[in-house]
Parts: sequence; C-alpha cells; structure tokens
Amino acid sequence: MTDSARAFVPGHLTGFFSAHPDEDPTKAGSRGCGITIDEGVVVRLEPGEGLELNGDEATIEAVDRVLDALRATAHVVVETDLPLGAGFGVSGAAALGAALATNAVFDRGLSENELVTIAHGAEVQAGTGLGDVVAQARGGVPTRLEPGAPAHGAMDGIPANRPIEYVSFGKLPTDEIIGGDTDELTAAGQRALSALVAEPTMGTFMEVSRRFAREAELLTPDIEEVVREVSAAGGEASMTMLGETVFALDDGLSAAGYDAERCSVSVAGAHLR
Amino acid sequence: MTDSARAFVPGHLTGFFSAHPDEDPTKAGSRGCGITIDEGVVVRLEPGEGLELNGDEATIEAVDRVLDALRATAHVVVETDLPLGAGFGVSGAAALGAALATNAVFDRGLSENELVTIAHGAEVQAGTGLGDVVAQARGGVPTRLEPGAPAHGAMDGIPANRPIEYVSFGKLPTDEIIGGDTDELTAAGQRALSALVAEPTMGTFMEVSRRFAREAELLTPDIEEVVREVSAAGGEASMTMLGETVFALDDGLSAAGYDAERCSVSVAGAHLR
Repeated sequence: MTDSARAFVPGHLTGFFSAHPDEDPTKAGSRGCGITIDEGVVVRLEPGEGLELNGDEATIEAVDRVLDALRATAHVVVETDLPLGAGFGVSGAAALGAALATNAVFDRGLSENELVTIAHGAEVQAGTGLGDVVAQARGGVPTRLEPGAPAHGAMDGIPANRPIEYVSFGKLPTDEIIGGDTDELTAAGQRALSALVAEPTMGTFMEVSRRFAREAELLTPDIEEVVREVSAAGGEASMTMLGETVFALDDGLSAAGYDAERCSVSVAGAHLR
Repeated sequence: MTDSARAFVPGHLTGFFSAHPDEDPTKAGSRGCGITIDEGVVVRLEPGEGLELNGDEATIEAVDRVLDALRATAHVVVETDLPLGAGFGVSGAAALGAALATNAVFDRGLSENELVTIAHGAEVQAGTGLGDVVAQARGGVPTRLEPGAPAHGAMDGIPANRPIEYVSFGKLPTDEIIGGDTDELTAAGQRALSALVAEPTMGTFMEVSRRFAREAELLTPDIEEVVREVSAAGGEASMTMLGETVFALDDGLSAAGYDAERCSVSVAGAHLR
C-alpha cells in the first residue's frame, strides 16, 4: 500500500455516437468515435474523505460510485484545465483516474480491464457518459465498434497524431440528452460509424462528425457558424458531443481567427504517474 | 499523401508466454505478459527502396512482408538503442512501425487494428515473434489473454508505471525456440498466466516470470546468477523471452551492483510521431 497515487486520464472529444442502453451497466454504452487529447485530468487520491475539483469542494457521482465499488474511503483531488460540462469527458476521466489510483493506494489487485469496467459502469449509472471511459483508457483516436466495458465492447482506432484546437462556448446537459429520446441520434450515429469503418481516416471522421451533429439536431446556431468559418478558411471542424465546443484539426480555428486552445492527440491512454 | 512518416514503437520485455500456432497467421500467437518500455524503435519511411538498421543496410523479413501486404515500395530507416536479438521485440516493432508509416505515406486508409493485424501476421510468418506486435500496439504492461491479431486475440493489462532496469548479455535464437517443441514451455506459460490473472500485480508478474523461465528450462547459468543477486539485494528480476537479458523493477539491478540501462513502463503504445 502506498500513501497516495496519481493518475492521468486524457480528455475525450466525441465526434459522433449512438446510444445503447442496457440494464447491465457494463453492457450499456455507445458506439462512435472521438479524439483523446494530451490535456486531461489528474486525479490524486489518498485515504481520507471528500473531493476537491480544481480546489473547490465538489461531488462527482461517478467517482463516488467507483469508491463504493472498490470499498474505499478516500480523499480525491481532481485537477484539470479542461472546461467542465463542455464535452471533454471530465467526469469519466475523474472516475477512471479514481479507479486506477484507488487500486494502487488500497492494494485492490485489479487488472486494467477490471478498473475500466468499474469506472465505465459508474459513469453509466451516474448518467454522465456512455463511452468516454473506454476511449480514455485506450488513448489515440478510438473507434467504439461495440458498446460497453472491455468484456463486451470492441474498439479500433484511427492512426493519427496531429495538433488539435478547440474553443468552448458553454455546457450542454449530457444527462438530459442521453436520458431522452435517442432514436434519431442513434440512427445518425450508426450511419456515421458505417462510413468511418469503410474509410478510417481523420478526414472522414471530421466529415461524418459534422453530418452527425446536423442530423441529430444538436448543432446550435453559434456552433454552426464557427464550423462554417473554419471550413471557409480551408480547415476541418466539428462539435463535441456533448458540449458547446468546437474542435478542429491542426490550426483550423486559429486560421479562422479564433483564440483557440491548442493540444495534440494523446498517444497514451489513462495511466498512473 | 505525405512525403515521409515516422512511427515510434515501444520495446517489449516478455516475462512468460505460451505458444499457440495456427495455419492462419492472424490466429496464431501467444498468451503471456510483458512490459512495454519507453525505449523503443523509430521507423522512418518514404517512397524508395532498401532498409537501414542503425545506419547499416539490413533485411528484416517481417518488414518486407508488411510492405508486400500493403503493396508499397519504400525506403525504411529503423533506429533503436535497444540490443538486437536480445528479447526486446525489435523485429516486431520494426514491422509495426513500418505498417503505421506506410499507411500514412501511401494513404492506405487502414485502421489501427488492420495495421496491427498485418504486422502481427508478418512477424508470425517470419518466425521472429508471436506476441510482441499486439503488446507493442497497446503499451503499458499488456497481458495477452487470448492469442492472435485484434480480431481473435484478447488483452488486459497490469496497472503500473514504474522504473525498469535491464542488462543484456546476448542473443537467443527466437525462431529455433518457438519453431521447436514448445509443449513444456506452453504448459509452464499457461500456469503462469492463470496465477497472474488471479492477482494481476507487478509482484506476481515477476514471480511467475521467474518460475516460468526455470520450468521452461530457458534460464542460462549466467542469467540465473544475476537474478539471484538481484533477489539477494532485495529486488525483483527475471529474464526476457527470448534473449539473454535480465530485467528488474525499479533500481533492482543497480542496487545489486550491475551497470544497468534504466527506462520506464511505456504509457503509450505504437504511434505516428
């Protein structure tokens, strides 16, 4: 048993998805594709109580559920420069980071798949995400071919390592959207995945992500305008699911005149550090 | 199409394995566990001909097979500080790096699983490895639960991020060992995997790896002495499969008086860079 442990979990920008609910939270999940980025969430954990998020007391239900599942009482410090509730998978990252760090501090002796399964189930039950955790565990540009935790899901990835930019304008309520009627969204997500599997490149990913955002009627007018301006400047942009955030390949946003944050595809998945 | 591309592939120290031959090279492979390290192989590739390995003309059959499978004619530059033929998976790394870079340079539009499958099949057919490629694609401390390329295999991992040391004394002929009678080795490997799955920790990994090396009768007297001296100094060491190399957790080798190379668990799998 170590005194404390730290884990890093990359942020995850979902481009498109289809929702696949199931009574078993390890089978529930999503298909789709997103980009993990080298900006993410650091979770530090030690025996104790309470959670701090960027210095403030907070509650993250998915983290509480992870600690319950691992029967641990811990003080959890979550730190991130990513915008909250804006489609970066921060809650899933906090849950996965807490699972990795709890296993290390409390000597739970679980494997990575087991810890990912616990964090994925916690996130699904909290209603805050359906596919961020498995993507963040893997790193790169993960395609979720089949939904669910490692025992049920199946993943692939788009080989790419390039700069990513983003600008965030605000939040969207993940729980209301994934808890509501998702039939149309899911049909659009399945079409996007079929097209991406036929040609797994970053160009296709951006194109099908834009089409998904339109077809699922999630594009706000503000976001649509930014995406259009990036295109006009010769770039490729789309909207994160689910947040009022636009992401672009390379310098797409700054070339269109936006003051964008710059990061890269994360070559690493979630890990202790 | 870019003019050239570069890929990094981590080295892979196999602790134990069982061999699972199959007529279909994508189903053939191994079960087992190893450590991917942040020292590895960089492959640079561009249209042209010939292969350079650390500045010298060379032939790596698995790389030739990858280029054939991707119908590409390329000049391949392979660079590594890792010892060759000493159990670091350099040939598998060269094959996987060539697959990633060829896909980028020649716009082949394949997914990561497809590229890993091509590199794994090439390595199996060349007779130079059975499980390095899938482990190197993943990063971390990968457990190969089921053999074969992504469509057939199954993987997990031991959550760990710590320093690793190694000392290399020479080569072992991989092709002779995995091409020979592997019944006893495979029985020992299966026992090791069962024990590791029951308790997936680095301590268990080192313990079952040492037992495997003894039971499979691969320990040379020199290697056995080094492993014993690391234990006597309070550390944990074992032998790489297949090479006359000893690896240890943390500073196990230097604490026992050896002039060891120092690296870390690789948090990233193979990637373009």
